[in-house]
Amino acid sequence: MAVTPLAPSRTLSALTKRELVLKFENLQFTASFKERGALNRLCLLSEDERKRGVVAMSAGNHAQALAYHGGRLDVPVTIVMPKNTPNAKVRQTSVFGAEVLLRGDTFAATLAVTQELAAKRGATLIHPFDDEAVIAGQGTLGLELLEQAPDLHTIVVPVGGGGLIAGVAVAVRSIRPDIRIVGVQTERFAAVHDALQGNESRTTRPGTVAEGIAVETPGSITLPIIREHVDRVVTVTEPEIEDAVFALLEVEKTVTEGAGACPLAAVKAYPDIGAGGVTALVLTGGNIDMMILSSILQRGLVRTRRLVRIKVEAPDVPGAMADLTRILGDLDSNIVDIAHQRAFAAATVRTTAIEFVLQMRGKEQVEAVLDSLRGAGYDAAES
Amino acid sequence: MAVTPLAPSRTLSALTKRELVLKFENLQFTASFKERGALNRLCLLSEDERKRGVVAMSAGNHAQALAYHGGRLDVPVTIVMPKNTPNAKVRQTSVFGAEVLLRGDTFAATLAVTQELAAKRGATLIHPFDDEAVIAGQGTLGLELLEQAPDLHTIVVPVGGGGLIAGVAVAVRSIRPDIRIVGVQTERFAAVHDALQGNESRTTRPGTVAEGIAVETPGSITLPIIREHVDRVVTVTEPEIEDAVFALLEVEKTVTEGAGACPLAAVKAYPDIGAGGVTALVLTGGNIDMMILSSILQRGLVRTRRLVRIKVEAPDVPGAMADLTRILGDLDSNIVDIAHQRAFAAATVRTTAIEFVLQMRGKEQVEAVLDSLRGAGYDAAES
Repeated sequence: MAVTPLAPSRTLSALTKRELVLKFENLQFTASFKERGALNRLCLLSEDERKRGVVAMSAGNHAQALAYHGGRLDVPVTIVMPKNTPNAKVRQTSVFGAEVLLRGDTFAATLAVTQELAAKRGATLIHPFDDEAVIAGQGTLGLELLEQAPDLHTIVVPVGGGGLIAGVAVAVRSIRPDIRIVGVQTERFAAVHDALQGNESRTTRPGTVAEGIAVETPGSITLPIIREHVDRVVTVTEPEIEDAVFALLEVEKTVTEGAGACPLAAVKAYPDIGAGGVTALVLTGGNIDMMILSSILQRGLVRTRRLVRIKVEAPDVPGAMADLTRILGDLDSNIVDIAHQRAFAAATVRTTAIEFVLQMRGKEQVEAVLDSLRGAGYDAAES
Repeated sequence: MAVTPLAPSRTLSALTKRELVLKFENLQFTASFKERGALNRLCLLSEDERKRGVVAMSAGNHAQALAYHGGRLDVPVTIVMPKNTPNAKVRQTSVFGAEVLLRGDTFAATLAVTQELAAKRGATLIHPFDDEAVIAGQGTLGLELLEQAPDLHTIVVPVGGGGLIAGVAVAVRSIRPDIRIVGVQTERFAAVHDALQGNESRTTRPGTVAEGIAVETPGSITLPIIREHVDRVVTVTEPEIEDAVFALLEVEKTVTEGAGACPLAAVKAYPDIGAGGVTALVLTGGNIDMMILSSILQRGLVRTRRLVRIKVEAPDVPGAMADLTRILGDLDSNIVDIAHQRAFAAATVRTTAIEFVLQMRGKEQVEAVLDSLRGAGYDAAES
């Protein structure tokens, strides 16, 4: 576990009219804050426990953190992952010398195998968040923040099981009870938020980009700490999270996973969060699938009208495409894709519906292109 | 201009069997090293020159750097860009209060307007690299490196016009003549490399992802400095640059523009560069179009076989697709796209050629899927 940089973001501060500093936990060696808790837990093992090793169930950041620090400290680490875990995730953990077992088709089945294995081997089972030593380890993030930014007013932290925010809240509040601690969850997995609202029954919905905080049930140790020491837990939507990943990439040149971008999503969605002074956004991790990141980029371009789809009704004759593409070229609009629809979308058998995907500079250029196409007699619209 | 972080990369070091440290010039406020030269040049203006302002021709990092520091120092800045410059680039410069003029369809025409304008206003024309004060300013990067990594053996720097490498070479060599200075160019714009080889005639080819170093003619001040103080200038290919952008994003969680990734491309392509000791890769900038970055991600996934296209010859009957997709699903292969080819690619009128774009985990899974499809009687191949 390393001290990670804290840096102000002038551009995001101006954009959100807040005074934002970013905590780059995505620059930990295994690219997430989980190393803090894992390392602390491993350091507190007795000599005998170290020899018998540790076991954990995780396909994500907790697994990598344990595997890496277990390797460094010479503690045997066994990680159990669900059977259908992608090879990439297996490799990211086994590369540190951990034993990786693929067992169970469901969460419950994998957990059962993990518990059995720990019992059989006399190994220590390390929970990703509901463990006092793990929580205390995550709390070092709060202490580091206080050293790096003594004038801090608010800390915004993503919340899944609640280990990080519980640790940070206890550590920070013991020294600076005045600092506000705000948690963020995706609305698809809002168990901690709901529990604080006295509503335990809302069900979670799969399909979040913030895999790292997709936790169904808050910890039995973390939840009471959160109730006592956290000021507020808010939820953000999936588009808000995607948008934050995009902004951190484009503006800050840094890669965050969905969970890691939630604090930025929260200050954008809630104007009162961080309005009182310097606000630290904890970018908890950077382990995002490159395929997902590529989709987020393209969806971001569509959202900001830099990638636009336009449908044009054109006569089905030679030369029509030349005329259309000349108009587009004259307006500096780069063509990304062209698709013809004859059977389904065209108005008559003598016309064809052509869909262009175009690179644009924003709203004004889209309007200019549509006007120009219509001026030349084409029926054109965004589609 | 800020002191930017220098950090070791354990993963890229292991990957390249070198001892690599990364210099994050992409984390400058305007996301490139150009601030160093621009700021130094502005600071050396006389009181009278400051009042009359500065003029420059650039649509890129030099423009942003001058606009930002001119704004800070209260020096009027006028930037001339070619007529077809994307609005985004205009906005990134005008946001700092600079006047931006769009003039000229060609490099020569825009340059002529810039020179005229400077003469008419009595303003100082600031060249992006062929200017001693700019070169000296870029040299501060070298001094910073020596402070941050006293045990440095080699510095690898992207080369366009040669301002950065000339400044770094002079500054570093005056203190530590033993340090090796290596330059990198894209093979599409290899003017400095060619000049050093005594070959001035090779023509440049447009279409590089490394826009920041797409310079046709080396500087008349920079080239002699490079001849004297630089050990070696190498070239890298476009796929090598793309691959380096991808690796920096996936492994280091950092966004670099094409030019900024060239040093990593060079140590991967040339096993002897940096083999002698600690090697600094200067990540010169992070201003990359998000559309281009998205394409680099997808092309990187294709290259690493995480995105694969497979063509299957199937009977053109109901149920065929259900059978095919069941096989793909059973092997955990996620379908990204499906296209049918009847008229062109199918073997008989009773069959259809179906192209699947699939998310894969690498070579082994591709083989498994092809074997499984063939085992079920389909003619299947990568396409």
